Amino acid sequence: MTTTLKQFINDNLPKLEEELYSLVENIKAPSQLKESMLYSLKAGGKRVRPLFVLAVCNMFHNNQKEAYTVGAVVEMIHTYSLIHDDLPSMDNDDMRRGKPTNHVIYGDALATLAGDALNTLSFGILARMENITPEKRIELINLLSVAAGAEGMVGGQVLDMDGEKRTLSLPELENVHVNKTGALLRFSIESGAVLSDATMEERFALVEYAHHIGLAFQIQDDILDIVGTTEELGKTAGKDVESHKSTYPALLTLEGAKQKLEEHYQFAIAALGKIDKNTIILQEFAQYIVKRHN
Amino acid sequence: MTTTLKQFINDNLPKLEEELYSLVENIKAPSQLKESMLYSLKAGGKRVRPLFVLAVCNMFHNNQKEAYTVGAVVEMIHTYSLIHDDLPSMDNDDMRRGKPTNHVIYGDALATLAGDALNTLSFGILARMENITPEKRIELINLLSVAAGAEGMVGGQVLDMDGEKRTLSLPELENVHVNKTGALLRFSIESGAVLSDATMEERFALVEYAHHIGLAFQIQDDILDIVGTTEELGKTAGKDVESHKSTYPALLTLEGAKQKLEEHYQFAIAALGKIDKNTIILQEFAQYIVKRHN
Repeated sequence: MTTTLKQFINDNLPKLEEELYSLVENIKAPSQLKESMLYSLKAGGKRVRPLFVLAVCNMFHNNQKEAYTVGAVVEMIHTYSLIHDDLPSMDNDDMRRGKPTNHVIYGDALATLAGDALNTLSFGILARMENITPEKRIELINLLSVAAGAEGMVGGQVLDMDGEKRTLSLPELENVHVNKTGALLRFSIESGAVLSDATMEERFALVEYAHHIGLAFQIQDDILDIVGTTEELGKTAGKDVESHKSTYPALLTLEGAKQKLEEHYQFAIAALGKIDKNTIILQEFAQYIVKRHN
Repeated sequence: MTTTLKQFINDNLPKLEEELYSLVENIKAPSQLKESMLYSLKAGGKRVRPLFVLAVCNMFHNNQKEAYTVGAVVEMIHTYSLIHDDLPSMDNDDMRRGKPTNHVIYGDALATLAGDALNTLSFGILARMENITPEKRIELINLLSVAAGAEGMVGGQVLDMDGEKRTLSLPELENVHVNKTGALLRFSIESGAVLSDATMEERFALVEYAHHIGLAFQIQDDILDIVGTTEELGKTAGKDVESHKSTYPALLTLEGAKQKLEEHYQFAIAALGKIDKNTIILQEFAQYIVKRHN
């Protein structure tokens, strides 16, 4: 990671996490439910999605508190999806980020409800952002609902489950990821544009960047499952190969997947070229996505 | 059920269900996901919550299409909570309304995701109600998030699970139900007030009515578990007694529970007396709640 990006993260991560935790700590709810919600929120992770919200706002010199709030909301949605994904009835994962998963600690029932509560809370938080106009809040809620629901992330998870039963074609695989991980990443970047009153041209360029970053992120995930270790990843390595899952390396070979990754990286950088702002953080973020080891 | 109420339901139910199904049929999502969502939405049920939205709007002579949309949204949230509640890791119910539950047909994973998708979709639908002001949409989204999430329905489910391990006191039991079933019922009634530009006095009276109706509804549920048959109920009767669950009859005896039910009914009717409108449908609705057999 470059110094500029590291500095940006160091400057923003503490404020983001403070906002994230306090939004949950401040609700009036049964203590074991809040504890279960906070357990997964505090289990770490790279915070890629909220950092994208902040990076976009930063590019527009927008230092509103609301960027942290929207960042926290995106992380809540991401976290709820992980809690449900890890359930025995879904991927049945006991470990995540080197820690026991939510249901291992709190049981399947409470883990299901903690996920549900995070999903529902996210929309309430967006609705209560009193310093931005109702119109903008509505736009964010609509974008998030589409990105996170049946037409986005949840739909992508269904396609992914379906794809485990057979070998997908490359367009089918891309469609899984555009929805499963891409839609929420796109929301992260697009919400930054909405919060910062970006022009339509800027917004389109950012969405294009988001599209390629989303796919690059997934391809690198697939590659890391092969070349990474369980220790580095904080989750079981080699699971995709073992389960004969359709992945970019499986369809394109490892070399082919690396080339595809490089292509999406180049497209992402080219999209940033259409924006007449200092895009250095977003450039370095793209570089980090393709070079990361976990 | 009285003729007036029956007529009201016959006049409104088809339009409500048409709106409910078309809102899901119109989304762009994997077919098996939509099928699973629609299966539970179409599994029947009394549609009590959306009918309350419509009954309140009707009292204000508000015939907007939006009443049906909000009604559909409430039914989606209720349905998602039933799908998750029925999961093997939660209540493990195979039958609901005389039909196999969602996970029995579609598997636990898809059932979990169908619930998630309905939850997320609800907020998007409210955000997209273009014929009402953004301010009103924001108010509805905020109210629904609080009613359905950790501070309402989901929190109530956690309290309920917790209560299964020990005998609850009457205030504790009431607190479970105020959250688990009361919060969403209150939203149904309050959202009708928001949509119809009710005065603050009218809104407070309606919320009071909602509070007592919510508790009456639950007490009658507890009573029916004892005096009803599995056939009448469309779900296994006698489950509460068998599992030594804290219920109103368990804490107050069957006679005591019936008396409590009557008290809440009277309070609900008294609250309607504060509203200078024709409250006949809401009165008869209250009567139906306490007299129903399923």
